[in-house]
Amino acid sequence: MEKVKVCFYPANVCMEVPKGENLLRAAMQADVHINASCGGDGYCGKCRVIIEKGEVEQKLQAKLTEEEAKQGYALACSSTVESDLDVRVPIESQLGDKRVLERKPPIPLKGYTLSAKDWAERLPQWELNPPTTKIRLLLEKPTIEDNLSDGERIKRELSRLVGLKDVVIDYPMLQALPGLIRASSFDVTVTVLDRGQEIRAVRLEKGDTSPRQAAIAIDLGTTTISTQLVDLQTGEVIAEAADYNGQITYGEDIITRIIYSTRATGLAKLQSAAVNVIWNLVQQLVEKTGTEFCSITHLCISGNTVMIHLLLGIDPRYIRVDPYIPVATHFPWIKASNIGIRIASGVYLRCTPCVASYVGGDIVAGVLASGMFNSEKLTLYIDIGTNGEMCLGNKDWLLSCSCSAGPAFEGAGVKHGMRATSGAIEQVRINEATYEPMIITIGNRRPIGICGSGLIDVLAELFLAGVIDERGKVNVEIDTQRTRQGDSGGEYVLAWADESGTNRDIVITDVDIDNLIRAKAAIFAGINILLEEVSIDFDQVEEILIAGAFGRYIEIDKAIIIGILPDIDTDKIKFVGNGSLLGSYLMALSKNMIAEADKIADMMTYLELSTNPRFMDQYISALFLPHTNVEDFPTVTRRLEEARKRGRLGAAAGGGQS
Amino acid sequence: MEKVKVCFYPANVCMEVPKGENLLRAAMQADVHINASCGGDGYCGKCRVIIEKGEVEQKLQAKLTEEEAKQGYALACSSTVESDLDVRVPIESQLGDKRVLERKPPIPLKGYTLSAKDWAERLPQWELNPPTTKIRLLLEKPTIEDNLSDGERIKRELSRLVGLKDVVIDYPMLQALPGLIRASSFDVTVTVLDRGQEIRAVRLEKGDTSPRQAAIAIDLGTTTISTQLVDLQTGEVIAEAADYNGQITYGEDIITRIIYSTRATGLAKLQSAAVNVIWNLVQQLVEKTGTEFCSITHLCISGNTVMIHLLLGIDPRYIRVDPYIPVATHFPWIKASNIGIRIASGVYLRCTPCVASYVGGDIVAGVLASGMFNSEKLTLYIDIGTNGEMCLGNKDWLLSCSCSAGPAFEGAGVKHGMRATSGAIEQVRINEATYEPMIITIGNRRPIGICGSGLIDVLAELFLAGVIDERGKVNVEIDTQRTRQGDSGGEYVLAWADESGTNRDIVITDVDIDNLIRAKAAIFAGINILLEEVSIDFDQVEEILIAGAFGRYIEIDKAIIIGILPDIDTDKIKFVGNGSLLGSYLMALSKNMIAEADKIADMMTYLELSTNPRFMDQYISALFLPHTNVEDFPTVTRRLEEARKRGRLGAAAGGGQS
Repeated sequence: MEKVKVCFYPANVCMEVPKGENLLRAAMQADVHINASCGGDGYCGKCRVIIEKGEVEQKLQAKLTEEEAKQGYALACSSTVESDLDVRVPIESQLGDKRVLERKPPIPLKGYTLSAKDWAERLPQWELNPPTTKIRLLLEKPTIEDNLSDGERIKRELSRLVGLKDVVIDYPMLQALPGLIRASSFDVTVTVLDRGQEIRAVRLEKGDTSPRQAAIAIDLGTTTISTQLVDLQTGEVIAEAADYNGQITYGEDIITRIIYSTRATGLAKLQSAAVNVIWNLVQQLVEKTGTEFCSITHLCISGNTVMIHLLLGIDPRYIRVDPYIPVATHFPWIKASNIGIRIASGVYLRCTPCVASYVGGDIVAGVLASGMFNSEKLTLYIDIGTNGEMCLGNKDWLLSCSCSAGPAFEGAGVKHGMRATSGAIEQVRINEATYEPMIITIGNRRPIGICGSGLIDVLAELFLAGVIDERGKVNVEIDTQRTRQGDSGGEYVLAWADESGTNRDIVITDVDIDNLIRAKAAIFAGINILLEEVSIDFDQVEEILIAGAFGRYIEIDKAIIIGILPDIDTDKIKFVGNGSLLGSYLMALSKNMIAEADKIADMMTYLELSTNPRFMDQYISALFLPHTNVEDFPTVTRRLEEARKRGRLGAAAGGGQS
Repeated sequence: MEKVKVCFYPANVCMEVPKGENLLRAAMQADVHINASCGGDGYCGKCRVIIEKGEVEQKLQAKLTEEEAKQGYALACSSTVESDLDVRVPIESQLGDKRVLERKPPIPLKGYTLSAKDWAERLPQWELNPPTTKIRLLLEKPTIEDNLSDGERIKRELSRLVGLKDVVIDYPMLQALPGLIRASSFDVTVTVLDRGQEIRAVRLEKGDTSPRQAAIAIDLGTTTISTQLVDLQTGEVIAEAADYNGQITYGEDIITRIIYSTRATGLAKLQSAAVNVIWNLVQQLVEKTGTEFCSITHLCISGNTVMIHLLLGIDPRYIRVDPYIPVATHFPWIKASNIGIRIASGVYLRCTPCVASYVGGDIVAGVLASGMFNSEKLTLYIDIGTNGEMCLGNKDWLLSCSCSAGPAFEGAGVKHGMRATSGAIEQVRINEATYEPMIITIGNRRPIGICGSGLIDVLAELFLAGVIDERGKVNVEIDTQRTRQGDSGGEYVLAWADESGTNRDIVITDVDIDNLIRAKAAIFAGINILLEEVSIDFDQVEEILIAGAFGRYIEIDKAIIIGILPDIDTDKIKFVGNGSLLGSYLMALSKNMIAEADKIADMMTYLELSTNPRFMDQYISALFLPHTNVEDFPTVTRRLEEARKRGRLGAAAGGGQS
């Protein structure tokens, strides 16, 4: 039987299959996930893939538009493999329901989330004073006696009305000027952009459009792009919208994307993938609020250094090679249309400055939004994602680092790990006597996997219940069917096949746990290196700010039990939420905040950990639950003792409720 | 016989001819000039025309490239008319040898030309300090310890080395950065543009290119574009090049061009016509000096308001309708590539600010270059071209106007008028007794027409010799064969058919003289209106500066005789030369000069004459030779008396030498 080779991207998994094999089946064999809810009869049309190389025979194309067919789209379920193939699984075919992106975070049990009142205190210099302003001008019509040019007439009125001097009129606006100004009988609205050093008139509209002014605040995440439509008159968020970053199709993590960007048209593809999502989100924001596009006058974007490079089409390849140097950390105001956003040419965007290759504008934005750069208090800011990025300091100094924790907490490298979408186990309790679990899934569906917050819970609970030891090994000797020897060493069954949404047992294995412990060790080591660098004990840290989408969902005490965070007074902990988005929001509304962000980026020192030998020592010490130095975790020791006691009591009572 | 209609552009002359007529012959019948030196056998290939509409049969295409044939080019001499035609005569087929553009001006008999020494005195604030600087940076290579981004590394070095702070890196330079900086082992040259409010790094090159820095200074004239390659290290002009403005193909004067610009693609065509000539000139400058393109870091361009609008693709249509409003008089720094100049994207251009629709950057540049804005002396600056533009004032105030003198002094509306090219009569003397002329032509060829300076000479000499009276009428009663009654009233024969290059008598007619008198009256009236506006007598004017290509060639005493200029002490008169080009040159070399030009444009008051009733009074009074008020011209009266006396003596002596 003739065999052909099918390669799936971005997973980068190749598989030999017989010629004529069904493509969906081939994907399943290769363990590549493609959404397919109708079982493969072509009805749901969800299993779209892009045939990048090679030939398939398609039985059904009804669910594809002509445009899609032209672009190489095919339905995997009704395609048979006819030759060697390169198949790209687009983001929409990989990921679940994106409505979960907008789920409300739970109210944390420990620590508390910073509120509007806090921001007011923390950011006294904040004021509603956006970088762009729409100014309505009722110009005097020119006469022989008053024969200033159209441009100078606008400048004179700007000077008279609002005292703006030395405004430079942008070239495209000059070209639009004569027709527009006369079509509106000299009643116009001009948009003025204050770039700090230079004030520029960037856009002209007929009549009075000044009552409607809005900006877009963006958190450009590696996984998710979150946006807000911000009213520049009231400072309110009018609407929010989020979606997966379309670049996921080309690679889940930033390193894969950097590598992809070095391909012939890779950088351009990654750029347009992000730009298209941003533009779709802007359209959604506009449509659902009935806002007009023309009311949007600027965009403020915060993201990690690689994301910003890719968005601007700047080659990021040197970020991943020693000594890890980005092209730029500060970015000029750029026309949104220059990067392909299909908005009026007078709309500019600004990217929050970055600090280094792995401490980006998202962290600067968060440090800005949290107000820690204003604070007397010694503060630790932590953003846990694929990388754990953190910043220690106060108003006098800021020290940052990034530790490549790896994507374990995002579900990668974990057998049944998954993103935080429907059916993901997000909270777990394990009975110390019976070892039986209690699980809650997102959307209350049958469980299909475990997301990040669930993994922290599982680890902590297994440890408290004594199912795993301090090295993270599952004890298969204990008296329960839940633990057993599996393909990857010991494993614990969180859900039996008949309870799960996948008809398979959902387990967590020794290998999974090992990956998770390595991830938490990296974060803990990073925190310690920062403290060590300035000879400070953790007790001296007065405030701990936890940011990031992931951070919003974790339970602090569980994070301490497994030793992600040191054993500290949880009252010191506050949740920032999406600090990157919040920073973008503040900058969209206030020139002062833009100036502060520049100062923060300049003031922040970056410690490179990848080549730091002390980091390796710290990391190795942290490869235990909660840590090699268990004496540094007194509350964890106490809780362990309590749990074990409850376990013994429960077991003595014959199992059941503890 | 079937007739077809052939229309020639830009002349806008139509003619009925038999179908099958030779196209060159049709042009000759329509009195449309097309260069054709081989008599029509297709050998010289000079009689290129563009067939815009209709059909011709071409016997010969050997002299045309494939590209030209595709664009509709045909040789008029070997084309026969097959249908109604629209034929455009391109500039190169209309105009003579353009080498004459570079002819050296004569040393004036009266007044003197300002020299380098004068500029030094007149412009104490001038210093060699160009808006762009190339700075060679030997960057430290990044390490883990010194891990600034490429962009910040450049900024740090700029700050260290030359103290530049807050430099903004242009977006395209950011995109080019990472590859280039590494390909050159961190040894780079950065070009920095000081835009006044903001300093921008605009370009990066490998290695040390800083020893070679040049700029292009441009006078963008309606008829001629003059350029200089300027060494930014020494301040010297390395080379000059000039050519006709390619827009002539679409209309000789600015009004025709404004009208053409309102056609569908008219503005784009006019823009690219000028841009192409500029680019060709830049190429010439580069080639003939062995300069490298990459050494050119900016362009400074001065031109009248309409020329600048067309160059930048800004709709000029409102300039020609009451109240005559330009779109812009101040222009931002613009990327040269944005207007289609095919130079590196980091090269910016700057247009000298204009004052009003008919007082442009050419005048501002001239006022700058002449130093009159610095001077205590009450100065009158005059630039005579199609329009007479003038400016009166000193360091405290500047008053300007433009009088539409019409193109008579450029040879238009004059039967045998022509541009200042080979064979044009440029100097004339007429014997007061014999009425015989003595003529000198450009290039010492047989005369084919009369150019501007020749026309002034002719008028003055005819008047002195008594051939014409104070109303400009040719006296056909005097005792010479040179005067006679022609088709257009009286006429004077400057060259007989057998002496001329055209085998036709070269004459000047009553109608010609009337047109010239109206042109000079407009200029004289403009001068008087400026003086009247500030209640100043001409005697109080301490310095008269004459600028413009045309101004370089006129003889002052002749200009006074016919009353273009008032009867003044000729010692007060100085020649500026091409003030527009000189201003561009000064600005290309010095930021101070750019700032001064802005101040001059802002400070200059503009008087609109077209609707000024006092202008009309002044104009009517000036429709005599030298003027209605002959008592204001005592030296002219004296010279007239002397000439008439010489004439009488000569006649009494029986003619011959006086």
